[in-house]
Amino acid sequence: MTDPRQNALEYARHNRERFLAELKEIVAIPSISTADEHKPDVIRAAEWMASHLRALGMDKVQVMPTGGHPVVYGETMKAGKDAATVLIYGHYDVQPPDPLHLWESGPFNAVQRGDYFFGRGTSDMKGQVVATLKAVEAVLRTSGLPVNVKWLIEGEEEIGSKNLGAFIKKNAAMLKADICLNPDAGMMGAELPTITYGLRGLAYMELRVYGPSKDLHSGLYGGVVHNPAQALAELIAGMHDKNGKITLPGFYDKVRKLSKREREEFARLPANKKTYLEQTGVSLLWGEPAYLPSERVGARPTLEINGLLSGWTGQGSKTVLPAHAMAKISCRLVPDQNPDEVYKQLSAYLKAKAPKDIRWELIKLTDSGWAITDVNSPGVKAMDDALKTAWGKRPLYRREGGSIGVVVQLQDYAGVESVLTGFGLPDDDIHSPNERMHLPTWYKGIESLIHFIYNMAG
Amino acid sequence: MTDPRQNALEYARHNRERFLAELKEIVAIPSISTADEHKPDVIRAAEWMASHLRALGMDKVQVMPTGGHPVVYGETMKAGKDAATVLIYGHYDVQPPDPLHLWESGPFNAVQRGDYFFGRGTSDMKGQVVATLKAVEAVLRTSGLPVNVKWLIEGEEEIGSKNLGAFIKKNAAMLKADICLNPDAGMMGAELPTITYGLRGLAYMELRVYGPSKDLHSGLYGGVVHNPAQALAELIAGMHDKNGKITLPGFYDKVRKLSKREREEFARLPANKKTYLEQTGVSLLWGEPAYLPSERVGARPTLEINGLLSGWTGQGSKTVLPAHAMAKISCRLVPDQNPDEVYKQLSAYLKAKAPKDIRWELIKLTDSGWAITDVNSPGVKAMDDALKTAWGKRPLYRREGGSIGVVVQLQDYAGVESVLTGFGLPDDDIHSPNERMHLPTWYKGIESLIHFIYNMAG
Repeated sequence: MTDPRQNALEYARHNRERFLAELKEIVAIPSISTADEHKPDVIRAAEWMASHLRALGMDKVQVMPTGGHPVVYGETMKAGKDAATVLIYGHYDVQPPDPLHLWESGPFNAVQRGDYFFGRGTSDMKGQVVATLKAVEAVLRTSGLPVNVKWLIEGEEEIGSKNLGAFIKKNAAMLKADICLNPDAGMMGAELPTITYGLRGLAYMELRVYGPSKDLHSGLYGGVVHNPAQALAELIAGMHDKNGKITLPGFYDKVRKLSKREREEFARLPANKKTYLEQTGVSLLWGEPAYLPSERVGARPTLEINGLLSGWTGQGSKTVLPAHAMAKISCRLVPDQNPDEVYKQLSAYLKAKAPKDIRWELIKLTDSGWAITDVNSPGVKAMDDALKTAWGKRPLYRREGGSIGVVVQLQDYAGVESVLTGFGLPDDDIHSPNERMHLPTWYKGIESLIHFIYNMAG
Repeated sequence: MTDPRQNALEYARHNRERFLAELKEIVAIPSISTADEHKPDVIRAAEWMASHLRALGMDKVQVMPTGGHPVVYGETMKAGKDAATVLIYGHYDVQPPDPLHLWESGPFNAVQRGDYFFGRGTSDMKGQVVATLKAVEAVLRTSGLPVNVKWLIEGEEEIGSKNLGAFIKKNAAMLKADICLNPDAGMMGAELPTITYGLRGLAYMELRVYGPSKDLHSGLYGGVVHNPAQALAELIAGMHDKNGKITLPGFYDKVRKLSKREREEFARLPANKKTYLEQTGVSLLWGEPAYLPSERVGARPTLEINGLLSGWTGQGSKTVLPAHAMAKISCRLVPDQNPDEVYKQLSAYLKAKAPKDIRWELIKLTDSGWAITDVNSPGVKAMDDALKTAWGKRPLYRREGGSIGVVVQLQDYAGVESVLTGFGLPDDDIHSPNERMHLPTWYKGIESLIHFIYNMAG
C-alpha cells in the first residue's frame, strides 16, 4: 500500500490545469465588496464558493446572511469525534481594480504570462481559497479526509470585516475547531515559507488640550497664556524617553518577554534594517536599540501620533493663539497588554504631567486585542512540517505589527487559535493593477496544504 | 489778552452740537471697505473728508489713488519752517455692521442714548477723525494754528492697510513730520487717558518635518520610524524652557531692556493678572515669572504655535504613521530684534536639535517690524501734558502686543514716530453691533487735542 499522501499529491499534480481553470472562473466574478453596483457579483461569488463546497460533499453548506455581505459555511465531520477539526478561513471579495488603464490584461479575465497568473484576486485571496479547496479535494478523492473540516469564507475582508465579529460571536459553537488555517498572510519570498503566529492589538485615543475660552490674538495675549498647541507638544514629547521607550506608568509591566527561540526566529527573518530603510524611505531607523527592527514591529508595543490639529493650518499666516489642540494617539499592543489598561496608563501620565494652566480630555476611539498562537501547538507543528516537506526548508516564524480582526475574534470569541500562512508573495501587487500569483509557489502551496491535512491527522 | 487756548476750548464747547451733527453725517455714509458694493460709499466718505479739509483751508487737498481705496491728504504749512509739523493719521472706512438684527438703532443712523452716541464708526474711528478735525478747527478759527498740520486719512484700515505701505514709501517726503498723532489706539477707561508708545513686530514661519516617503501603516512600521508628528512635538517642546523663556540661540541678545521708568509705568496699568484671566478664560496665567503680564504682552518677545497639522485629523481613527507634520510658528518681536535674525535663530535651533532621522524645512511667511516712540520726545511730552490737563491726571503708558502697519511704516519709511492715543473705550463694542462712543470722553478728547496742538508749539 502506497503512502496515501502520495496519491493525493499525484492527484493534485495531475489536475493542475483544471484547478487553474476553476480559479479563472471565480476570478471572472468581480466580487468587489466596496461597490454597491457589484452586490450581485458578490452574491454570485458566495454561491460559487457554496457550490464548490457542496461538490466536495460538505454538509450544512449555507450562504449565511450577516449585516453586510454573506458568510459561506460548510463542514464535514465524518472523520469523527476523535479526529482533529480544522477551520479554514478565506474571503471571496476583492479590491476594486482601478486604475483600469494600468492593467496589461483584463483584471477579471485571468491569464497566464510566464510563471504568473494575472488577475484581481489571484493572490488576494481567491487563489489562496482555491488552493485550500483543491488540497481538500485531492485528499478527499484519494484517501478520504482524515480530519474534520469547517469553512468560514467571508465577503467583507476588503472593507474591514465589519460584520464578522458579530457572526463569530453568534456562531462560536459552530466554528469550534482545533486550529484555524488562515492562508491570507502570505510568505516572505518564493523560497521563504512563512508562519505568522502573532498580531499586535490596538488602543486608539484622542487627546484634546484646552487653553483659553476662544481663539486669541497672539499679539494681544501672547506671553501670558500657555499655548495649547505648545502644551500638547510638551506632553507628546514626554511620552517617549531618549531611547524610544514609552514613559507611561506601567506600560511595559504586562509585556510578555520574547523567548530565546522567538528571538532566534526573528533573527532569521529577511526583514532587516535595510528592508525597513528601503520600504519607509527614511535615512535612519528609530526605536528601542535593544530590539531588532522586526521585533520592534512585531513584538514590541508602540505609541504613535496618528494626527495633530490646532489653530491655523491653511496657506499663509494667521496670528492666532489657538483655544485648543488635538492629537490622535494610538498604541500597538502585544501580549499581555490590555487596551483599557493602556487608556488608564495614558490618563495617569497626563494626570501627572499636564500643567495646571491647561485642561485636557482623553477620548477612547477604537481598540482591538492582540493575537498569539502557541508555536508548540499541534496546528503550528503540522504546518511547520508541511512547509518543510514542500519547500525542503524550515519556515520562517514572524509576528505581524498590524491587526487582523478574524484572528482576534476567533481567538477571543470561539477559542480558536490561527496558523497564518499563504502563498502570496510580497511582489504580487495585491490591491494594485496587474495583481498576480506565482504559479510554481501556488502548486507547491497546494501540496503543502495536503501535507498539513495529513499532519493534522497525527 | 486771554490765553489763546481758552478761546479755542470755548469754541469747541460752544459748537459741540454741530460737531456731533457732522459726525452723524459721516457715520451715515456706509464706507465698508471690505464690501465691493459699498465702493461708491467708500469714495463718498473720502470726498467728505477732503471737503472738510478744504473747509479748514488746508492746501494740496487730494483724494489720492492707491492700489485699493484712496488716501485723503491735505496740509497747512503756514506756521512756518521753524514750527513743529504734526501728521494726523486716521481712517474713514468701517467694519460691516452684521449681524444687523442685533442693532438697537440703525448702524448708519447715529443716535444719542444717554451719554453714548451709537453707530458704526462712532468709536472706530470716524469719531476720532472728527475729533481731530474739530480740534484743529477750534484752534484755527480762534488763534490760528501755531503748528503745521498734515493729514493722512486712509480707507483700508479695516482690511489690513494693504496698500498703505507702498503709499507711505512713495510719499515719504510729503509725509515728513515731527510726530504722527494716531488717535486709533483708544484709552483703557473713561478716566484712564492712555499713550501707547510701542508695538511688537512679527516673524511668522512654517516648520515642516518630513519622515517616511509616504504615509505608512502604523501597524506594519510602528516601532522603526521616528514619527514626524512626534519629532515635531519634541522640537516644539524644546523651544521654551520651564520658565517660559525661549531657547533659540541668541534670541534675547538684542532685546532692549525695560527702563526703570517703563517698568513703573507698566506697574500702573490696570491690565493686571485678573484682567488677563478674565479676558482669556484660562485658570492660570503662563509666562516669564520675572515680568508682569502686561510687560510680557507689550515688551517681551514670544514664540507662539499658531497651528499644527499632521496625519489624520477627521472623526474617528486612522492608523497612519504620517509622512510629515507642520507647525505655524510666529515670534512677536520687540526692539531691537529683527525678523530675519529670528528666522536664523530658529534655523540654528533646528540645526542643533533636530534628530538625524527626520528632515525639516523652515519657511518664512510674513514679518513686520516693531515700533517704538521715544517717551521723552516733544510729541509724547505734548500729549502727556494735554491729557493731564484735560483729565487732571497723568496718562497711562503702554506698549501693545500686536502690530499696527501704519505706525511701523511711518517709522521705517518716513522716519516719523507716532504718539498713539484716542478716546475710544474698551467697552465701545467696536466691530460689533451697537458700536458706541462715550460723549463726555469725546468732548474731553477734543479739548485734549486742542491742548496738544498748543503744546506742540512749545
